[in-house]
Amino acid sequence: MAATDYDDITYEVCEQIATIRLNRPEARNGYTLRMSDELEDALQRADRDDDVRVVVLTGAGGDFSVGADLSGGGFDVSEADEASGQEHWQEPAGRCSRTIHLMNTPVIAAIRGAAVGGGLTITLSCDFRLAATDSRFGFVFARRGIYPEGASVWYLPRLVGVTKASDWMISGRVFGADEALASGLLTSVHEPHEVEEAAHALARDIRDTTAPVSVAVIRAMLARLSGGSSPFPAHEVDSALIRNLATNADAIEGVRSFLEKRPPTFPGTVSRDLPSSLPWADQPTHTPD
Amino acid sequence: MAATDYDDITYEVCEQIATIRLNRPEARNGYTLRMSDELEDALQRADRDDDVRVVVLTGAGGDFSVGADLSGGGFDVSEADEASGQEHWQEPAGRCSRTIHLMNTPVIAAIRGAAVGGGLTITLSCDFRLAATDSRFGFVFARRGIYPEGASVWYLPRLVGVTKASDWMISGRVFGADEALASGLLTSVHEPHEVEEAAHALARDIRDTTAPVSVAVIRAMLARLSGGSSPFPAHEVDSALIRNLATNADAIEGVRSFLEKRPPTFPGTVSRDLPSSLPWADQPTHTPD
Amino acid sequence: MAATDYDDITYEVCEQIATIRLNRPEARNGYTLRMSDELEDALQRADRDDDVRVVVLTGAGGDFSVGADLSGGGFDVSEADEASGQEHWQEPAGRCSRTIHLMNTPVIAAIRGAAVGGGLTITLSCDFRLAATDSRFGFVFARRGIYPEGASVWYLPRLVGVTKASDWMISGRVFGADEALASGLLTSVHEPHEVEEAAHALARDIRDTTAPVSVAVIRAMLARLSGGSSPFPAHEVDSALIRNLATNADAIEGVRSFLEKRPPTFPGTVSRDLPSSLPWADQPTHTPD
Repeated sequence: MAATDYDDITYEVCEQIATIRLNRPEARNGYTLRMSDELEDALQRADRDDDVRVVVLTGAGGDFSVGADLSGGGFDVSEADEASGQEHWQEPAGRCSRTIHLMNTPVIAAIRGAAVGGGLTITLSCDFRLAATDSRFGFVFARRGIYPEGASVWYLPRLVGVTKASDWMISGRVFGADEALASGLLTSVHEPHEVEEAAHALARDIRDTTAPVSVAVIRAMLARLSGGSSPFPAHEVDSALIRNLATNADAIEGVRSFLEKRPPTFPGTVSRDLPSSLPWADQPTHTPD
Repeated sequence: MAATDYDDITYEVCEQIATIRLNRPEARNGYTLRMSDELEDALQRADRDDDVRVVVLTGAGGDFSVGADLSGGGFDVSEADEASGQEHWQEPAGRCSRTIHLMNTPVIAAIRGAAVGGGLTITLSCDFRLAATDSRFGFVFARRGIYPEGASVWYLPRLVGVTKASDWMISGRVFGADEALASGLLTSVHEPHEVEEAAHALARDIRDTTAPVSVAVIRAMLARLSGGSSPFPAHEVDSALIRNLATNADAIEGVRSFLEKRPPTFPGTVSRDLPSSLPWADQPTHTPD
Repeated sequence: MAATDYDDITYEVCEQIATIRLNRPEARNGYTLRMSDELEDALQRADRDDDVRVVVLTGAGGDFSVGADLSGGGFDVSEADEASGQEHWQEPAGRCSRTIHLMNTPVIAAIRGAAVGGGLTITLSCDFRLAATDSRFGFVFARRGIYPEGASVWYLPRLVGVTKASDWMISGRVFGADEALASGLLTSVHEPHEVEEAAHALARDIRDTTAPVSVAVIRAMLARLSGGSSPFPAHEVDSALIRNLATNADAIEGVRSFLEKRPPTFPGTVSRDLPSSLPWADQPTHTPD
């Protein structure tokens, strides 16, 4: 697929920031199977590109996404037959949230209006969720007779604590930006017309001040070590990484630029310079352990 | 045991909502071995009954429970001899919190006045904790020379974060409803005479708007998948559930009622319609993995 | 090492409270290899001493610690050669945070001014973090081209939730006491000249009201059971501890003093009276499972 082949999303890169936009505004960005496959493709495209430092994930029009597209009168089950034969078939919301989980590049969700059901769970593995004062959220599964997806039962309690996660998921109620911010679901809240610019300002700040290899390693450490039953595996990874610091060009530039009070110019790139000591370094990209 | 045989609690069902009430108001609902066994029995009774959609757990009089009954001058150790021979003996607070953890039916705790020690840990696996402006809480174990129970060392950090959990458990201090709400221990706070009605209003809302099978599956997913070290087991369960959505009568009714803007009438019941794809589906009810 | 042999820290015990002080105020307590070894030694010294009930960890001068000492123009890699041969070499911040994790004695961090990088990660396994209105925090690794240490990727999400942890660690930005308190990183915030006294007041309160064996067991249970994938291991430990309560002198004194409304005098000491039923009782002190 070429970036210009996408139907349900758009993809553009400008000054090392990729913007991926859900693009079915006529359907309030209702989530489709095609959209899920295109998101997976676009996210991996951005992640393979050293010239993309940050991804902004947003929606065209006044809503991020109302969740599964119901324009056919129900859920799209066109893959059901083929799925029944595939043990590793991945449901659509998870194609997006799982891909984000495994990326080296940070992802900022910029949310206006509705982010409901699958239109919300696809954002839970993002590094930042910026939303608008008019945003509305809902884990509405219990009210539709269905089940959570996107591994949201794993992410949500870690983002907001079990009390809020249980409340939102059992009741299925819709809630606003104030409650979402106070509980820790959101990084920050903005005026609706300013959310996307706030996301880009944050993206530029990350691009200009951080080392891409450090960011990739930190993302992977949070994704793979924070859920463990003890801190000892994290200690081992920390020690292996720090043991090799003497020859790390990024670390040398980081300290020098700091002492010289100037912006850093980190030489390392993700495609070449990920530390070999990471226990998951031998695993193929974009696959879980 | 018949519901009318309970001594230390009461059990009643009205309009699909079971109310289980700690009923030793003369002792501020001090927790007894009998109470723990009766709670386990009553909770399982409610859970086996498809006509019970929600359980409200509350106390008679002005307090929820002051914790272990000390009217005998100390902790009741009448089971100590028999316990020493039983490898799988379960301490009393855990008989309640463990049963709630494994239920298909959501449980709302409605708390007035004191909820201290075992009188608090038994609520930590509830889906909702509603309390009163006059409520007082304490994980007072360190101040009594004893240890936490009800698996509270597992639940509490997940409800309120490790900083508050350590503070409360190491200091053993008593704290009020404002702090409990701000930290995420509580779902909401109400006037003392309104807590129980607020719990019933929430119970009616869950009963009227959600699918019982969805609620049971969501409860189990949160209980069994949210504590794992990675999201991948959750992705697998999500995908298995969604793969079978085409023939799911609850999902069809959920979408139809939503599109028709009418209240849903979900056909599925927990006793008949739990998805067979759940990895724990073959396990006997009310036992852990 | 004798306590008087320390160069980069000081150690004193007064009325059962040990104060360990980072003592390089001329370098804003920049963290050194020597400091990390002295901290490990001093913390274990306090932990072996039944006459030390609480440790206060603080810094000399106006800052807690600005993180790794860069006075040599970069990170001190003097151990790099020897480290490369040692599979179990522990990086310096982890020598402190890991030791605290495994102690029986609670540790209160009292923070003024800067607590940045390793100067912050060493506090994440403390039971309490008290800070000042002038405190400034930063997980600045991504901005220096390096990686988190002290197992902070495990601790931080459990203290403040994943949204804040990702924000702070990916952006590397510096933030103040208000944000740190609201997010749950801090136990409380005080005027700069009052932080240390607030920490000592809390230490005295713990000393005077709690049983040392209970505190040691609670610390270990939180450290070893709260990160598990289910509550069932916690239930087992709870039940084993409570099964033996009948003969527990601390529990008898705890209830008696409570009923008699007098301060407790707990007879148990950590060196003699840790419960033998703990699953980690046979493990050597200060080693992980």
